[in-house]
Amino acid sequence: MTKLIAVLAGDGIGPEVTAEAVRVLQATGLDLAFEEAPVGGQGYRQTGRPLPPETLALARRADAVLFGAVGDPEFDALERRLRPEAAILGIRREMATFANLRPAKLFKGLEDASALRPEVAGAIDLLIVRELNGDVYFGEKGFRTSPAGHRQGYDVMSYDEAEVRRIAAVGFDAARRRRGKLCSVDKANVLETSQLWRDVVSAMAAEYPDVELTHLYVDNAAMQLVRDPGQFDVIVTGNLFGDILSDQASMCVGSIGLLPSASLDANGKGMYEPIHGSAPDIAGQGKANPCAAILSAAMLLRFSLGEGEAADRIEAAVARAIAGGARTGDLGGTLSTTAMADAVLREM
Amino acid sequence: MTKLIAVLAGDGIGPEVTAEAVRVLQATGLDLAFEEAPVGGQGYRQTGRPLPPETLALARRADAVLFGAVGDPEFDALERRLRPEAAILGIRREMATFANLRPAKLFKGLEDASALRPEVAGAIDLLIVRELNGDVYFGEKGFRTSPAGHRQGYDVMSYDEAEVRRIAAVGFDAARRRRGKLCSVDKANVLETSQLWRDVVSAMAAEYPDVELTHLYVDNAAMQLVRDPGQFDVIVTGNLFGDILSDQASMCVGSIGLLPSASLDANGKGMYEPIHGSAPDIAGQGKANPCAAILSAAMLLRFSLGEGEAADRIEAAVARAIAGGARTGDLGGTLSTTAMADAVLREM
Ligand SMILES: CC(C)[C@H](C(=O)O)[C@@H](O)C(=O)O
Ligand SMILES: CC(C)[C@H](C(=O)O)[C@@H](O)C(=O)O
Repeated sequence: MTKLIAVLAGDGIGPEVTAEAVRVLQATGLDLAFEEAPVGGQGYRQTGRPLPPETLALARRADAVLFGAVGDPEFDALERRLRPEAAILGIRREMATFANLRPAKLFKGLEDASALRPEVAGAIDLLIVRELNGDVYFGEKGFRTSPAGHRQGYDVMSYDEAEVRRIAAVGFDAARRRRGKLCSVDKANVLETSQLWRDVVSAMAAEYPDVELTHLYVDNAAMQLVRDPGQFDVIVTGNLFGDILSDQASMCVGSIGLLPSASLDANGKGMYEPIHGSAPDIAGQGKANPCAAILSAAMLLRFSLGEGEAADRIEAAVARAIAGGARTGDLGGTLSTTAMADAVLREM
Repeated sequence: MTKLIAVLAGDGIGPEVTAEAVRVLQATGLDLAFEEAPVGGQGYRQTGRPLPPETLALARRADAVLFGAVGDPEFDALERRLRPEAAILGIRREMATFANLRPAKLFKGLEDASALRPEVAGAIDLLIVRELNGDVYFGEKGFRTSPAGHRQGYDVMSYDEAEVRRIAAVGFDAARRRRGKLCSVDKANVLETSQLWRDVVSAMAAEYPDVELTHLYVDNAAMQLVRDPGQFDVIVTGNLFGDILSDQASMCVGSIGLLPSASLDANGKGMYEPIHGSAPDIAGQGKANPCAAILSAAMLLRFSLGEGEAADRIEAAVARAIAGGARTGDLGGTLSTTAMADAVLREM
């Protein structure tokens, strides 16, 4: 049976890298159909809304969503609900994709691309499990007048027990399938949201006696990710801390252009996107690294279509292409977006 | 006229490193008096309160506060207002020290101590200006029942125009005295608190035509701090983001045991503390690096006592001691806390 993939390419380098990911998916020989729809700044330009209802309907109808990137400085002055970023937050909320998986591992041959010493970078093989439907991202927010008469911006951070349990379970399960270590990151010495988080995660440890659970404050975690990232197996954390730590981790492996992500709902349906943004500075120039998008497509096959073997093949091809010296500009090379994808395709 | 310094040594390695900082202050030959008071877990043990009223009164009365560290796992289960950390937050609030200055610079000779490549680490010379009296740290917080009947933790994040203006002014002024570059860090694509922050900072740029102002989202900033920390001169940001980024930056220069901080009120009165914590794992063993405390004492002389020359002397002595090979365990050496301070004293 043909599987339908919604392709939401979005803004900036989104279309360029997504096109290559689609090409790689087509090369798998699997029975896939692709349907495109506008999103982000592109959606706003075409329909006046960053997440047009037809786009959301397609995303819901499809077996999986392949997402590019959104964000366009042209729209920074719009009210928040009309900005490109509203699309990504809208899809995450509407599709209830609460579990964001962000693996980071150093590719062989890229020991020199990381800002970290080769021996520090070489040890990186971690998975960040980031909660994606709650936290200060989705709480009440707005502007009000402070008691002293000043204009004030505010955002409410919160998590409840059910939200924490469900994301922590994803973290424990992932740790079980990997090296058995889970590090929960919070700021429980200051935040009640974090205190509840820590209490719930700690209580769950008894259900996972085979997983070694530790806790770190987020400031310490940011430090440890530079000092010795090899110490981490799975990190589970909230939406805001996960945003910061996963971008930081990406740089430890050399380039944000290499890192894919999966955002899954409770049934394994999901949306897949590079963790990089729309990179308006290099958009349209054929310079972007398509590997993050290609690896996101591999995650799509594994998690939403049950095609783990095809996913393995794509990932191995990317690794071989990089080991063989294929490099876009972010990795110090000169290959174009398409030439990089060609190098991957040759290895499949 | 004798200047009074309140010495709040606190928990863990706090007393060890603070004692060395006092020794260095005494060696300056300045007319200083020292008065100690309990704080943190130490305060709780002695008086049932992490910030005893007498301690706060001393801090207010003194010309400056030299602070060690607070935090003791023994008290993690206490309610928040009785935990050691409540002391530090209480002093910051009660003394209205809203401006936290956290310089980070690689010492000569420590090119190899950083997890970053020597050429990346060698370029670091930045100052993080962190707001310290607002944000999600001090907003309304607590536990409540969610609509679905679950226990929920919540914390309100907020900033008003006056709060942003006053910390941004510290950032602009500092940039003016340094290399003229200010980078404001927020998450304006998601948070209204950040949107207000960005609007206020942007509007102030006209008053500082000689300062080059840029903005980064916090996730990108965490990435850039690993990729190319040499690009930063002054970073100004809120309480929570500043907490994370400054700890991350500390690791880029080799050890958190080297980094001092100043927390200043509107009149330049302040409290000075290492950015490291109480490190219970090595407490009482004479292993801790006293340099962060000693350099905090130097900042105290410069900012609260107007003794810039003595501050320069201490900082130069630390640099020479390190360049000469003096190393505590965190830097891969074997010197004890006292021996490291001796090495600094010899260079004065
Ligand atoms: C674009 C932005 C809203 C988004 C986020 O903060 O979640 C991005 O940074 C990400 O990590 O996917
Ligand atoms: C101890 C803790 C409350 C504190 C903070 O988060 O501010 C510490 O991490 C710091 O940076 O001074």
